[in-house]
Amino acid sequence: MQDILNKDIPLGGLFSIIYRSRNIYLNNSMNTTGLSQGQVFALITLSKENNITQDRIAELFYLDKGTVARAVRKLEDSGYICRTQDPDNRRAHRLSLTEKGEKILPYIKEIANKWDKDVCKGFSPEDLDKFNSLLRTICERSLLSAMEVPGYGDRL
Amino acid sequence: MQDILNKDIPLGGLFSIIYRSRNIYLNNSMNTTGLSQGQVFALITLSKENNITQDRIAELFYLDKGTVARAVRKLEDSGYICRTQDPDNRRAHRLSLTEKGEKILPYIKEIANKWDKDVCKGFSPEDLDKFNSLLRTICERSLLSAMEVPGYGDRL
Repeated sequence: MQDILNKDIPLGGLFSIIYRSRNIYLNNSMNTTGLSQGQVFALITLSKENNITQDRIAELFYLDKGTVARAVRKLEDSGYICRTQDPDNRRAHRLSLTEKGEKILPYIKEIANKWDKDVCKGFSPEDLDKFNSLLRTICERSLLSAMEVPGYGDRL
Repeated sequence: MQDILNKDIPLGGLFSIIYRSRNIYLNNSMNTTGLSQGQVFALITLSKENNITQDRIAELFYLDKGTVARAVRKLEDSGYICRTQDPDNRRAHRLSLTEKGEKILPYIKEIANKWDKDVCKGFSPEDLDKFNSLLRTICERSLLSAMEVPGYGDRL
């Protein structure tokens, strides 16, 4: 492995670089679909829980409503999802994958999974388990710290 | 630890959540300084290598020139850094911390280091070493994948 990283980049800096470079990779890989990484989370969620609200997607990914609304609008405009009025709440909508959405899904999942696999290639099963467990702990702690920030829900 | 994360969020999704929640934490912690997380990397770099160009900062953090230019402008407007014309290249500028920048630096570093320490609290030294080593490998591989994308330098 080529040593391309400055040795004293702190932990948080590594997370920033991973986040930004993953987005570049995903956006490029999806460029024939008209979608970008900003819509992946919504598409994958709808493949698991169909007929849900925007608020439910926000809740699952700790995203603010504006970010989810933008992703949903893009997916709807591109014909990948459709919305129907919630029968229990006239102000809310339920979201579902369209046929086009169902069709693109395996391709999108493959791209996201490929990144996960490629960056961990050659890790032993023990290392991978340990890494995932520590990363989840870091993620939970980071979320909890963010949740203590006043106005948290509006910022994420 | 409260189990707040959806169990099937993939690796890439965890990195997204960590990145976003860390930014919320940093921005809130720095809100008395007039700075945000988007300027931290430049400020810390200038504390290590004074009198450098914007391009050098972009290079160290794999950032595009626009992102670095915005961060530098904000730091300059807030009086934390100053620029002087590069004697070797009339079109470039060299950047340095001002007295105000030097003064705020320990506080900014403390905030960034505190996040790093807090999220890894209680990890054994072996676990921490292993985690850091695997994270750097993932970061390097992710960067290399992004670098293969056409027009990479304009997007990061």
